[in-house]
Amino acid sequence: MAKVGIIMGSNSDLPVMQGAIDILNSFDIEVEVDIVSAHRTPEKLWDYAKNAHTRGITVIIAGAGGAAHLPGMVASMSPLPVIGVPVKSRNSIDGWDSVLSILQMPSGVPVATVALDGATNAGILAAQIIGAQDKCVLDKILFYKESLKVKVNKASEEMKK
Amino acid sequence: MAKVGIIMGSNSDLPVMQGAIDILNSFDIEVEVDIVSAHRTPEKLWDYAKNAHTRGITVIIAGAGGAAHLPGMVASMSPLPVIGVPVKSRNSIDGWDSVLSILQMPSGVPVATVALDGATNAGILAAQIIGAQDKCVLDKILFYKESLKVKVNKASEEMKK
Amino acid sequence: MAKVGIIMGSNSDLPVMQGAIDILNSFDIEVEVDIVSAHRTPEKLWDYAKNAHTRGITVIIAGAGGAAHLPGMVASMSPLPVIGVPVKSRNSIDGWDSVLSILQMPSGVPVATVALDGATNAGILAAQIIGAQDKCVLDKILFYKESLKVKVNKASEEMKK
Amino acid sequence: MAKVGIIMGSNSDLPVMQGAIDILNSFDIEVEVDIVSAHRTPEKLWDYAKNAHTRGITVIIAGAGGAAHLPGMVASMSPLPVIGVPVKSRNSIDGWDSVLSILQMPSGVPVATVALDGATNAGILAAQIIGAQDKCVLDKILFYKESLKVKVNKASEEMKK
Amino acid sequence: MAKVGIIMGSNSDLPVMQGAIDILNSFDIEVEVDIVSAHRTPEKLWDYAKNAHTRGITVIIAGAGGAAHLPGMVASMSPLPVIGVPVKSRNSIDGWDSVLSILQMPSGVPVATVALDGATNAGILAAQIIGAQDKCVLDKILFYKESLKVKVNKASEEMKK
Amino acid sequence: MAKVGIIMGSNSDLPVMQGAIDILNSFDIEVEVDIVSAHRTPEKLWDYAKNAHTRGITVIIAGAGGAAHLPGMVASMSPLPVIGVPVKSRNSIDGWDSVLSILQMPSGVPVATVALDGATNAGILAAQIIGAQDKCVLDKILFYKESLKVKVNKASEEMKK
Amino acid sequence: MAKVGIIMGSNSDLPVMQGAIDILNSFDIEVEVDIVSAHRTPEKLWDYAKNAHTRGITVIIAGAGGAAHLPGMVASMSPLPVIGVPVKSRNSIDGWDSVLSILQMPSGVPVATVALDGATNAGILAAQIIGAQDKCVLDKILFYKESLKVKVNKASEEMKK
Amino acid sequence: MAKVGIIMGSNSDLPVMQGAIDILNSFDIEVEVDIVSAHRTPEKLWDYAKNAHTRGITVIIAGAGGAAHLPGMVASMSPLPVIGVPVKSRNSIDGWDSVLSILQMPSGVPVATVALDGATNAGILAAQIIGAQDKCVLDKILFYKESLKVKVNKASEEMKK
Repeated sequence: MAKVGIIMGSNSDLPVMQGAIDILNSFDIEVEVDIVSAHRTPEKLWDYAKNAHTRGITVIIAGAGGAAHLPGMVASMSPLPVIGVPVKSRNSIDGWDSVLSILQMPSGVPVATVALDGATNAGILAAQIIGAQDKCVLDKILFYKESLKVKVNKASEEMKK
Repeated sequence: MAKVGIIMGSNSDLPVMQGAIDILNSFDIEVEVDIVSAHRTPEKLWDYAKNAHTRGITVIIAGAGGAAHLPGMVASMSPLPVIGVPVKSRNSIDGWDSVLSILQMPSGVPVATVALDGATNAGILAAQIIGAQDKCVLDKILFYKESLKVKVNKASEEMKK
Repeated sequence: MAKVGIIMGSNSDLPVMQGAIDILNSFDIEVEVDIVSAHRTPEKLWDYAKNAHTRGITVIIAGAGGAAHLPGMVASMSPLPVIGVPVKSRNSIDGWDSVLSILQMPSGVPVATVALDGATNAGILAAQIIGAQDKCVLDKILFYKESLKVKVNKASEEMKK
Repeated sequence: MAKVGIIMGSNSDLPVMQGAIDILNSFDIEVEVDIVSAHRTPEKLWDYAKNAHTRGITVIIAGAGGAAHLPGMVASMSPLPVIGVPVKSRNSIDGWDSVLSILQMPSGVPVATVALDGATNAGILAAQIIGAQDKCVLDKILFYKESLKVKVNKASEEMKK
Repeated sequence: MAKVGIIMGSNSDLPVMQGAIDILNSFDIEVEVDIVSAHRTPEKLWDYAKNAHTRGITVIIAGAGGAAHLPGMVASMSPLPVIGVPVKSRNSIDGWDSVLSILQMPSGVPVATVALDGATNAGILAAQIIGAQDKCVLDKILFYKESLKVKVNKASEEMKK
Repeated sequence: MAKVGIIMGSNSDLPVMQGAIDILNSFDIEVEVDIVSAHRTPEKLWDYAKNAHTRGITVIIAGAGGAAHLPGMVASMSPLPVIGVPVKSRNSIDGWDSVLSILQMPSGVPVATVALDGATNAGILAAQIIGAQDKCVLDKILFYKESLKVKVNKASEEMKK
Repeated sequence: MAKVGIIMGSNSDLPVMQGAIDILNSFDIEVEVDIVSAHRTPEKLWDYAKNAHTRGITVIIAGAGGAAHLPGMVASMSPLPVIGVPVKSRNSIDGWDSVLSILQMPSGVPVATVALDGATNAGILAAQIIGAQDKCVLDKILFYKESLKVKVNKASEEMKK
Repeated sequence: MAKVGIIMGSNSDLPVMQGAIDILNSFDIEVEVDIVSAHRTPEKLWDYAKNAHTRGITVIIAGAGGAAHLPGMVASMSPLPVIGVPVKSRNSIDGWDSVLSILQMPSGVPVATVALDGATNAGILAAQIIGAQDKCVLDKILFYKESLKVKVNKASEEMKK
């Protein structure tokens, strides 16, 4: 059964990363959450990246701020798709540092980057990756897309009143 | 059998997008390539996005430059994972326009963005998405990662001479 | 009789977009306001853009934030002039994302872009477009320009005291 | 009969601005082209902006580079819709200067800004402004949009071969 | 006797521009303050710029925000040195718009640009321009420079305690 | 008699800085040109800045690239007006480094900054500073402004042919 | 015995620079703190930079904001390694000015730049420079690195609960 | 005896990194050069970073482009001072990606960042770090600084001719 590994560089990233946890919970997709710091716990990063695919994880979501190396370093060692969430941390230069550190990976080692603080989208993307080969999850995504539509239509109705 | 749909906004994007075609060919993953312009052929965009998942496509790679709406609009209508390749087109403001137009999607509709002109990485990411649930492709990715290592080591040997 | 269609990607854009509604009301130009999300209600976008010119709308104002595709996608399907308002949404990278996503349209499909959060100017521009061929509206614009002058002169008087 | 006034800050802007002339010619819309420099011929700017609407001009297209004040200053004195074309001049800081100088107009005085060096789009936008109230021009724009589609489809056919 | 003309685009710029008034007052240099909006009162701009040098003004300080055309347009019509103060106004894109609109003037028409919101420095620069040919003002500037030194040394003493 | 001191950080800046020399020569204003590097010849910088005003120099023009400290350091030690020319040097990050290093001076120590590579404008500004109190130079500037007009009008005539 | 000189351009930089003082204190490395302003106390800058290496200082940490010339000017006159801390001061353009003014030094005169407001890292870097040739300090750094790991692991434990 | 380890992410970085090798050779400081890719040879990175300080290396210089993780990852695992050289690689977004990925390290793990493509300065900084505790190297740096002065003075003489 598919499982999504969610890691972040610091517990201060949790308020942002919670978005990924919540949306995956709502899709009934199992998540495993941990703090792994590329710069402060390189050994843990190493173990995590080398072994995630051998213990049932299908997709990895990694969030980090500033000179954000966590998503790229996990991607360098894991064969799994890695989704990177640039987090706008304190002292960030308006988020540009984390966006560019995650997005601009060299040829050979991709990171699937989402918007600044876009953890919810990271969760949906992980579900879509699983759904690409799991009809049941695909249906949930189609249903979720309908729910977005309903919300907009409701807002539209209310505005017209 | 998994298949990757590769679309681009204009035939001028082909030299960049060829990177995705080549790497997927090298992984023996079937690709289907077409030009779909969000702004000039919206009906074709519509058909493509609505139906891709119903005719065997597992992942979509969409490349576009400038105010690049192709990846995001496909993502708005398809339940499949969509990988966006920002292309540095002529008249682009240093690539920032395509990067931000593809990356900064609103909550609910993710695009897996890769580096500017990073079509090769888009292809690898598509393979990883397939490999997440296909052991045979996963092994090819592990092998590919080894080949990257070998190339660096060879370059290292040569430099030392 | 000319009518301006005002759409926005989300009801959270209303406080900004109200500027367009108010200024057009003050010019006695009819407006029709709705929420149309490019990414969450693509079908509604489709219908809106395809048909606006057949049901009396003369100019379209579209406001959106982040990877703002609404103005450009409407412009791709409507023959009417489309005015784009980049909205500085939450999680925006200082507004650059919406500005570039709206401004940098490819050759063939223009969007008349105004300043970040510049909905009032979008309304004035819509009036000018109508006024270009409607003497009565043109006169109102000339009068409005005079009123701007009066305000500055009054502020100047007050400062000198 | 509608006429479009096209002005530019320097004859070095002509290669870019030719795009607007050509597309309007192709729509059989009359154009009047001149050089008007906000900084070097302020009196000419004054006359142009004050009188354009009294001598048959319906829309003004103004192109300029660097600290581009021409579109905004014309807009400050003319009641007509003014389309601004940011030109990437020599010594420009990657075009950011002309884009921001034209786009970020204060409330009350809009400029309809198009993409960097986007003169062709400025011409199309001028046609759309005229077409908003001239059925014959509107039809030409619909036809033009079809021609864009045909070109993309042809490129798609060729790529598939 | 030398006099400095201080103008600004809006009374909302006064809190920033006060810095120039205060420092010039402290140098006993006469100032004349007014609101002149390039976009809302172009006639007043015209009169001001054309005539300032004929009625005793030696240096002009012009502050404005957003697409800030005031300093450059004054410089286009006055032979006097014009100092531009980029003001970080509401809806500014982090101040970049006013900085670039004022700084990047075309060859032939300089504006002496100071830092974002740097009105105090604009005042000092005006004094230096006068002091370049007025020994008495030059001495005041030398004295002012000494006072800066004293303040730093005092802060240094306090920190060491 | 007024004299302008022109200094630059490296002889590689001369092609840009020549613009200031030429325009001042054309105004018959005496110039004194030298290379002074803030980072490589700090003693020379010191002597230059401390003494320029005592040996007949009225205005200083300083050009430098990258982390450009020359204009600001001269301004810190000289009571004269200092005009800074940001030079787009090799390895510059698109010129942003020199622009911001020169423009963003702290309160108390202004540098009159001109456009990137805007040495001609620096020369004109120096002439305007002298002209602010020298009627003969003021007249030359008025004449120069007329010559700009003539050139534009001639270009306008030629384009119309 | 090694000693670190910590200087800053203004006492308003102290809250940021305290990070360097604190971490060096925790490593039992002697610090000497002072305010030295490149622009307001150039003589003090001169003395400081020329003599620091002759009175027992081994590494210099210099923090400054805006057009930050302090680190680079000290580096131009001292043979010691100079660490620059870009401080995000009031009126800074999002910190870009201090980052680029410190980082982009010309060939021949390096400044070891750390992150925006990264004074703690400046302190650690100073310790590492000393530790490169002092086994005892090297051990403290290894110990410090372990303590970072422990903190992350503890946060990880807590999150899992 | 002190030794500097120079590593780079790819052999395409060698033309830039040669600057560090050459200047250190000119100071008679031993260098050891290798290619270590954070993303393609993570195991080699691991070994290198963990052991460099145990085999005689005193300072590490690491150069990389794009999402440049090499300097930061080495810094996370080595107690030695790490100097980062942002390399402007092909497909870089004007160098911003490598600058921010190297500079904006989180608290606890500094990288001493030099200018874009500033490998020569990285070499000088490494020498200064060694010179901080090695009188002989310190003297060479003082001599080098004199040589920079001589070159500028010579250029100054030539220009005056």
